[in-house]
Amino acid sequence: MPVPRDTFYMARAINLAKKGRYTTDPNPRVGCVLVRDDLIIGEGWHVKAGQGHAEVEALKNVADANGATAYVTLEPCSHHGRTPPCCDALIKAGVGRVVAAMQDPNPLVAGRGLEKLKAAGIEVYCGVLQEDAQALNRGFIKRMTVNRPFVRSKLAMSLDGRTAMASGESQWITSAEARADVHRLRAESSAILTGINTVLADDPSLNARIDEDIEQPVRVVLDTHLNMPVTAQMVKLPGRSLVLTGSQDQQRQSALQQAGFEVHQLPCKNGRLDLHAVMACLAEQQINELLVEAGPVLNGALLAEGLIDEYVIYMAPCVLGDQGRGLFNLPGLEKMADKKQLKLRDVRQVGQDLRLTYIPL
Amino acid sequence: MPVPRDTFYMARAINLAKKGRYTTDPNPRVGCVLVRDDLIIGEGWHVKAGQGHAEVEALKNVADANGATAYVTLEPCSHHGRTPPCCDALIKAGVGRVVAAMQDPNPLVAGRGLEKLKAAGIEVYCGVLQEDAQALNRGFIKRMTVNRPFVRSKLAMSLDGRTAMASGESQWITSAEARADVHRLRAESSAILTGINTVLADDPSLNARIDEDIEQPVRVVLDTHLNMPVTAQMVKLPGRSLVLTGSQDQQRQSALQQAGFEVHQLPCKNGRLDLHAVMACLAEQQINELLVEAGPVLNGALLAEGLIDEYVIYMAPCVLGDQGRGLFNLPGLEKMADKKQLKLRDVRQVGQDLRLTYIPL
Repeated sequence: MPVPRDTFYMARAINLAKKGRYTTDPNPRVGCVLVRDDLIIGEGWHVKAGQGHAEVEALKNVADANGATAYVTLEPCSHHGRTPPCCDALIKAGVGRVVAAMQDPNPLVAGRGLEKLKAAGIEVYCGVLQEDAQALNRGFIKRMTVNRPFVRSKLAMSLDGRTAMASGESQWITSAEARADVHRLRAESSAILTGINTVLADDPSLNARIDEDIEQPVRVVLDTHLNMPVTAQMVKLPGRSLVLTGSQDQQRQSALQQAGFEVHQLPCKNGRLDLHAVMACLAEQQINELLVEAGPVLNGALLAEGLIDEYVIYMAPCVLGDQGRGLFNLPGLEKMADKKQLKLRDVRQVGQDLRLTYIPL
Repeated sequence: MPVPRDTFYMARAINLAKKGRYTTDPNPRVGCVLVRDDLIIGEGWHVKAGQGHAEVEALKNVADANGATAYVTLEPCSHHGRTPPCCDALIKAGVGRVVAAMQDPNPLVAGRGLEKLKAAGIEVYCGVLQEDAQALNRGFIKRMTVNRPFVRSKLAMSLDGRTAMASGESQWITSAEARADVHRLRAESSAILTGINTVLADDPSLNARIDEDIEQPVRVVLDTHLNMPVTAQMVKLPGRSLVLTGSQDQQRQSALQQAGFEVHQLPCKNGRLDLHAVMACLAEQQINELLVEAGPVLNGALLAEGLIDEYVIYMAPCVLGDQGRGLFNLPGLEKMADKKQLKLRDVRQVGQDLRLTYIPL
């Protein structure tokens, strides 16, 4: 049974979980609060894979948790991973009640942790602030349930829908504040995806430049014909750089591997990489959240395949004119009836720009 | 000297003035409140050209205005127009104090009304809520001070900046709520401007369809080579339809006049109508507020000439793809440094769409 203060403490646990947003990959973000006699006696959150889970962190400095309630944003694990099961730690500590926001999203283990606690005589309740807890781990949940990452496409455009001049010049359409915001999006992401043409044109670093302790996102380039230069800037930076290709050219593959790239050969469809295979490959690589920063061709293809879960669009208060580059190349879209419908989720101002969030309908 | 309740009563006068927003053309919107002993004893607003001014309307049912304060959103007139001067009415009524929000914007008469009141021994103060009062009559002020209308361009687009499919199909990008909002914009406008290509493609009515007593806006079509069909839909509707042309073809001009159009011949520049001459012509026609509903060529030219005072953009949550039509045709705009910078003024949701208001920087 839920009690009145459950949402209060769970909200605190969710805020703790958020502290791990730049570092827990490939693990989920989890927070835990221990409460006895309406007093918080312990708090913890998962910081990094291989380090303590939230429950263990919360118990760490508590002399006596006997009879306490543990609020956890995700069902406590019941299996041995890199650390021992949290269920055992809670049972051993003598916790009297466990409130979870949501079950483990992995359908193969969901409910097992809660069952184990119940079997040990602990009162268990699940579902407090469930939607907020799900929002913490959209990528982890997507990977566990449908074997692909949560995919967010970031676009920066003028108010007349142009991402660059006809020449490709695009520095800068948006404000410094918007660009700083993008670095936070990057830091929250497990990986950044772009196309080979963007690499050839801009030689981007695709790293997150923010003043916090973060795990750098994995860089992923779709490169059907293996045109990646071994001299590309990104591979010299800390972190992983993946090239996904349809080419079987062993010599080029080896050259890139020698330069530091990880190369994955994937099936093609109509002469281009099969984007569903791309997503499955990235799930395999434990990518929870994927940020797409790409041109109109890749963005158009992802939209057409229904593979984008969220668009974050920075719209600058300027006009570039209709010779500038567009956002989505959608060959065959010729009738209004075939327009791609989205749904507005959020609008806010970032510097002088607007940040618009859309999701598919 | 201003007194504490001045802004309170002036705010009421401004709200009264707004009641005339669909009907006062070519006159300004004006409201008036009469106050004695901190009680409102009379209220009025200007409804329609030829009918009573706000001050006279406010005095109408007041038995005794002796010693009262009159709050007026615009300096009372001192000249005989279609109605006698309001100054005389206020003096005759024995008003003791007059508070105006702003002076008459016509530099040739500004201050004369207030002087006349002062000379009659009335205490006068000017400048209460001046900016709000100016916002009521942006078009009237613009016409009086720089001899052109206040020009607002309305655009409806997908989130990727497309106003139509490549074929020209555009019904409908935006929601019913957004389209209803456009009819309010039209009703508030003195005239609607479009280009001949829009007329040839869509045969639009360009009227305001709202459920209120309004003056229909004047329809204005830029038609350099006089291609307007005498059978065009708009000329059959109530209200005026103007064709502005560079063509001297008397026969075509007569045919259009016979069909009901007013035809004005204007100078050209680089083979197209001189847009500054267009604005001067419309000011001459007593157009205070002009709403542009045009395609990318005319919108691009107006932007390039710096003739737009405000953009109202309805952005629908859909994608049309980069083969769709753009907003602004700006030949020669090739470098980021030459981008047209605007400033965001307002964002609000209308139905499922966003309404974005921008002004030039």
